[in-house]
Amino acid sequence: MSTATETAAALTESELNEVDALWRAANYLAAGQIYLLDNPLLTEPLRREHIKPRLLGHWGTSPGLNFLYAHLNRLISRHDLDMMFVTGPGHGGPALLANTWLEGSYPEVKPEVTQDFEGLRTLFRQFSFPGGVPSHVAPEVPGSIHEGGELGYSLAHAFGAAFDNPGLIVACVIGDGEAETGPLATSWHAGKFLDPVHDGAVLPILHLNGYKIANPAVLARIPEHELDELLRGYGYAPYYVTGHEPGLMHQAMAATLDDVYAEIRRIQEQAREGVSGRPRWPVIVLRSPKGWTGPSVVDGKQVEGTWRAHQVPLPEVRENPEHLRELERWLRSYRPEELFDSEGRPRPAVTAVIPRGQRRMGANPHANGGLLLRPLLLPDPAAHGVPVPRPGTSSDEPTRVLGRYLKDVFARDGKTFRLFGPDETASNRLDAVYDVTAKAWQAAIEPVDEHLAGDGRVMEVLSEQLCQGWLEGYLLTGRHGLFSCYEAFAHIVDSMVNQHIKWLRVHRQIPWRRPIASLNYLLTSHVWRQDHNGFTHQDPGFIDHVANKSSEVVRVYLPPDTNTLLSVADHCLRSRDYVNVIVAGKNATPNWLDPEQAALHCARGAGMWEWASTYPDREPDVVLGCAGDAPTMEVLAAASLLRGYLPELAVRVVNVVDLMRLQPDTEHPHGMSDREFDALFTADRPVIFAYHGYPWLIHRLAYRRHNHAEFHVRGYKERGTTTTPFDMLVLNDMDRYQLVIDVIDRVPDLARRAGAVRQAMSEARERHHRWIREHGEDMPEVRNWTWA
Amino acid sequence: MSTATETAAALTESELNEVDALWRAANYLAAGQIYLLDNPLLTEPLRREHIKPRLLGHWGTSPGLNFLYAHLNRLISRHDLDMMFVTGPGHGGPALLANTWLEGSYPEVKPEVTQDFEGLRTLFRQFSFPGGVPSHVAPEVPGSIHEGGELGYSLAHAFGAAFDNPGLIVACVIGDGEAETGPLATSWHAGKFLDPVHDGAVLPILHLNGYKIANPAVLARIPEHELDELLRGYGYAPYYVTGHEPGLMHQAMAATLDDVYAEIRRIQEQAREGVSGRPRWPVIVLRSPKGWTGPSVVDGKQVEGTWRAHQVPLPEVRENPEHLRELERWLRSYRPEELFDSEGRPRPAVTAVIPRGQRRMGANPHANGGLLLRPLLLPDPAAHGVPVPRPGTSSDEPTRVLGRYLKDVFARDGKTFRLFGPDETASNRLDAVYDVTAKAWQAAIEPVDEHLAGDGRVMEVLSEQLCQGWLEGYLLTGRHGLFSCYEAFAHIVDSMVNQHIKWLRVHRQIPWRRPIASLNYLLTSHVWRQDHNGFTHQDPGFIDHVANKSSEVVRVYLPPDTNTLLSVADHCLRSRDYVNVIVAGKNATPNWLDPEQAALHCARGAGMWEWASTYPDREPDVVLGCAGDAPTMEVLAAASLLRGYLPELAVRVVNVVDLMRLQPDTEHPHGMSDREFDALFTADRPVIFAYHGYPWLIHRLAYRRHNHAEFHVRGYKERGTTTTPFDMLVLNDMDRYQLVIDVIDRVPDLARRAGAVRQAMSEARERHHRWIREHGEDMPEVRNWTWA
Repeated sequence: MSTATETAAALTESELNEVDALWRAANYLAAGQIYLLDNPLLTEPLRREHIKPRLLGHWGTSPGLNFLYAHLNRLISRHDLDMMFVTGPGHGGPALLANTWLEGSYPEVKPEVTQDFEGLRTLFRQFSFPGGVPSHVAPEVPGSIHEGGELGYSLAHAFGAAFDNPGLIVACVIGDGEAETGPLATSWHAGKFLDPVHDGAVLPILHLNGYKIANPAVLARIPEHELDELLRGYGYAPYYVTGHEPGLMHQAMAATLDDVYAEIRRIQEQAREGVSGRPRWPVIVLRSPKGWTGPSVVDGKQVEGTWRAHQVPLPEVRENPEHLRELERWLRSYRPEELFDSEGRPRPAVTAVIPRGQRRMGANPHANGGLLLRPLLLPDPAAHGVPVPRPGTSSDEPTRVLGRYLKDVFARDGKTFRLFGPDETASNRLDAVYDVTAKAWQAAIEPVDEHLAGDGRVMEVLSEQLCQGWLEGYLLTGRHGLFSCYEAFAHIVDSMVNQHIKWLRVHRQIPWRRPIASLNYLLTSHVWRQDHNGFTHQDPGFIDHVANKSSEVVRVYLPPDTNTLLSVADHCLRSRDYVNVIVAGKNATPNWLDPEQAALHCARGAGMWEWASTYPDREPDVVLGCAGDAPTMEVLAAASLLRGYLPELAVRVVNVVDLMRLQPDTEHPHGMSDREFDALFTADRPVIFAYHGYPWLIHRLAYRRHNHAEFHVRGYKERGTTTTPFDMLVLNDMDRYQLVIDVIDRVPDLARRAGAVRQAMSEARERHHRWIREHGEDMPEVRNWTWA
Repeated sequence: MSTATETAAALTESELNEVDALWRAANYLAAGQIYLLDNPLLTEPLRREHIKPRLLGHWGTSPGLNFLYAHLNRLISRHDLDMMFVTGPGHGGPALLANTWLEGSYPEVKPEVTQDFEGLRTLFRQFSFPGGVPSHVAPEVPGSIHEGGELGYSLAHAFGAAFDNPGLIVACVIGDGEAETGPLATSWHAGKFLDPVHDGAVLPILHLNGYKIANPAVLARIPEHELDELLRGYGYAPYYVTGHEPGLMHQAMAATLDDVYAEIRRIQEQAREGVSGRPRWPVIVLRSPKGWTGPSVVDGKQVEGTWRAHQVPLPEVRENPEHLRELERWLRSYRPEELFDSEGRPRPAVTAVIPRGQRRMGANPHANGGLLLRPLLLPDPAAHGVPVPRPGTSSDEPTRVLGRYLKDVFARDGKTFRLFGPDETASNRLDAVYDVTAKAWQAAIEPVDEHLAGDGRVMEVLSEQLCQGWLEGYLLTGRHGLFSCYEAFAHIVDSMVNQHIKWLRVHRQIPWRRPIASLNYLLTSHVWRQDHNGFTHQDPGFIDHVANKSSEVVRVYLPPDTNTLLSVADHCLRSRDYVNVIVAGKNATPNWLDPEQAALHCARGAGMWEWASTYPDREPDVVLGCAGDAPTMEVLAAASLLRGYLPELAVRVVNVVDLMRLQPDTEHPHGMSDREFDALFTADRPVIFAYHGYPWLIHRLAYRRHNHAEFHVRGYKERGTTTTPFDMLVLNDMDRYQLVIDVIDRVPDLARRAGAVRQAMSEARERHHRWIREHGEDMPEVRNWTWA
């Protein structure tokens, strides 16, 4: 344990001066970004008009981040390390912009922010300014894979980045506010899933600056022995750096980093020489004042070291001359004239400890993962497809067949693909992958266990949030993955996927950010087959959630059977910069399309199924639309009933795989033109549409279409319980009998016997209710139904 | 530390026999529910037709839950305790149904499940059966406030229940799967917020049965010293009960509970005598086999003590005669003839340790919180209102005024109301409440701190999930609360609010469940005023999320100014069994309505603002609709521009406070009839609607209306960045100039000069772009705009 008072000198005086110069320069630049519109080098006395009209930004966290960045630079330079920096604390933008400007990585990607007077002026002015850059470590900041706008995900991202990068060290600064979130609290356990042989290292740095926006932080206010137990309980060996006097703190941090680096290498060497056992990785606890080196007391109140330093420590600089003078004193305390030459370039003493080229953390290629991305060697989905000589005469479990395809993906690509899921890979029937890989597991393994291994590539932990965070980190550093999840519980990561979609939307607009693999969800164990798990497990709303987000990024697929699932999965694994949501069942489902038909149908995204339609050459009397496997089966069962009862009716069956096809082409890149839409759904005939999720989503997507008034949508309307699969359909009025009733109620001028058919359908629904209450399972006519 | 081998006898032989008999009876009933359609007492040899057709249910967790329930019963009886039981492990239904049947609390609320042969048959048959009961500890189960369908929230619920209940002990069983979730991982820290003087006690019981669905659990596979450090690091004193031999385990658990109970009382007594300092509360770790006492080996594979015991340990009972025989052996191993008399009644030896009346955990009134609920003594919102002699001539910060109202709520009701928020109460400008209460805080307090106290009633921790879980637990036990949150980050609790809404929907249908206070969200720091925090902080989608859920439960309010916010808050705090979402800004907002007008407008939910309309007696040429504070201001600014530029135009301004008024009355209880809707929005005139959130939500709510084709909605369309407030409106085409353009583009037969007005509006938008890039703030004509 290192503290500021007891450490022997790790740095020579000149080394200390270099690290300190870099730190002071970064602190100066961070403060300058928050305040200065002009006069960036204080070459003249500071005046009111040099100050920004709106003071936005967060000083509190910046000096600590700058301190760590400077010291990690020294460590990288000394050992030629491949290291990334993940900024957990919110609003760390000023610090990271300062450091990447100083190291030159920022000017390389944003040439107008030159390393001179004008560039400095631009750097300051653009910060939190219209048309400028955000206060977070957003995609605009080179070296970042983690924005830190929403808190809690830094450590999960860091582990995701470290997987399969054995030479990489990911330094991850965790704010003490962030540390209170659930995702961060469980992310500490990620050490039980990191393989010291084949993965890189994560160095968590818990930054206790003591305060959040308005409160002390919990971990900063428990006794140190308790914090020590907590971190040891999480499986780490804590190292402490505590204090506020810069000289002592520099020595303490340098000594600690030297120790910690030696420990990381020792762990890796031992493991790679074959010594087994889960290592106790080091963690650093940095306890330093919030707003360190900033104004100590303002208007008689303590600011440095308290929550009052969180944002703008001197808030009235434009109005209050005393604040203006205090700001100038503060800025000059860094001695800018020693840090920058007369043209605004950082002096050599400032940049001496900064590494060169791709060793600079802002230029590390892992943080611009698309640079390193190689396409997966994907198997041919058709080769894994199931034969379908005639539609609906055989059944398969779609996800089970997909599991065999994914096994082949693993077999072909051993190093850049992982599967993520909250303890559900086998439940979701993807377990064929265990033929070629295992579940990652570094904790104890007992003889009875199956498919656990230190180098397993299936990531299972009972936290959707940790799975999501790992996958994001893995993708952002240039690899591939798939997240399989119970549909209802995907909502647990609603907010995380929001942030990833926002990141991708901005990332796509930044020329130097290279495309990365899409984030692919397989939502299975879905609403229609959670009859046995009950109401809590029934929720199709994740689709609605993502459909609200940027259409540049979001795609939603509802493959109706096994071969379409394979085709969609293949497409998604090849795609870039998207969030793809695939919803597919794990239960036996009729096969409708053979592999070739499936590929064609998926490429079109939506289409008429002529073989299921009657009089396909005629303008239909009614269109039966469907999206999703359960709705498709019900629509086909309804079509079959109609064919038998009302054979003269021209029924067109239209299946939609790519949900965004329903939107206008002006709203989504996949959207159909009105001409295409009308050709498929007609301009004026009734459309009975059976949809997997909440029915109003179809209205929301299609409300601008000519024929929208004729759309009648069935779907899940939050009527669920513990019951049978078919009863779920009946409860929500999406069963075949109800669909036939819907047709009869909406098609004009039907034959007179339609009334009797309608009556028969109602009676079938009644029969169903009686049957399940007596037998506890669905009627044989439903269970044994086939299309043929 | 107690283990099964080293403990001195805590139970006499007859006590041990009683506890064991209750445990065996509960185990028998749990297994019976999973398997038996008939022959519930095994009065004849078990035959295939006695077995359910679909075997659904989860055996694995049941014996551990039953073991704990039996021992807690003994403790309650011995000390006459007021105790609740929270079941964290998923699918714990069979165990809790068994125990509440045995104690008689279940038959009291569901009279057909009598304590006799027929009742037993019904108990077994209904489980996971159509028309029956779910496999979770759903609202149907008396004594439950926590369903456990989605994992992670048990401990937060338990703490919520304990707040302000100084005599209550909440025993909370945490599954080792659940323990991997983020929310549970951070919930351990709740001990830093529980006041030993005025709050009750939470007794966490971490049940390590070793396995999840398909994997070992992390906490079960770390060394015990590491687990011990972790729990101590979280601030607890761990007690261990480890083993599998029932006799030894009974002694160990009884001794441990005696110790733990004594320790809880010692902590409380000391604190209540004035000894300060955060106590180290006890936690029990129960390490017992998964599927304990069930089939040990099935088909040659180890089942008991492994993940294979998770669901149905003998899966082929109807098909495989050996499985059937094994099931009968297993069930008879509990010796049902000793447990139930010939009529199916539990024998006195079984019920001997069960407490009586409301001491039974299934009959504890806290778990049916509506029984204890008393209305808040609410202040008059009008008394807190701001005077508004003329609309739009003054401004207030709505949430700041609400803070003064909430201060009064606290002042009047010191014991049944709390405010929850993730470190944002002051940021959200509700800090007037600190005049009368403080933030709860049991960790160290430094001299510089403000508004922290052990008995504070404002709950701040940087975890939206913990806030939500606490509030749910608090409400479900009969109290009141408000959760204030940055709008964008409410998505963090999407999945939690789903589950609470599902709970409420079922709860409302259960006659014996009494109405509880609504869960009230105040979403502030909203999308239109997160210009400074940037894109990550801009998301109005929580409204869409809840709007998908049961209309019986969900209400959404968008008060446009200060007095309407007060009226809505008052209404929500009086309401029962709802989830109310209030979206309101914290920034200065023009006052449109005086307190009386506000109350009337809020009661109507939507209405025409005659004072803002031109020619209010005429059928309008165009309707300007608005919902939300920022949209309302833009609509009024647009109306003002139209009045100046096109004075002959009849413009009707309609404001919507209660968003669900837009739905048809057939879809939502607050929905307007078509007649009302047409009277407000006309049947055929253009409607330009400015909405707070994603514009398509308005279409989704109004697509069935006659005039829907004429609805043109502006709202947030995911175009955000770090910029100025007015630029956020311009980026999303909801600014006043665009709204005027929309009117000109849609109203037919306008005066010829409309073209010039349109041009002027476009130029104003251009001027805005240039201005903000130069000045970094909005144009004076925007910043200084007033209605008058």
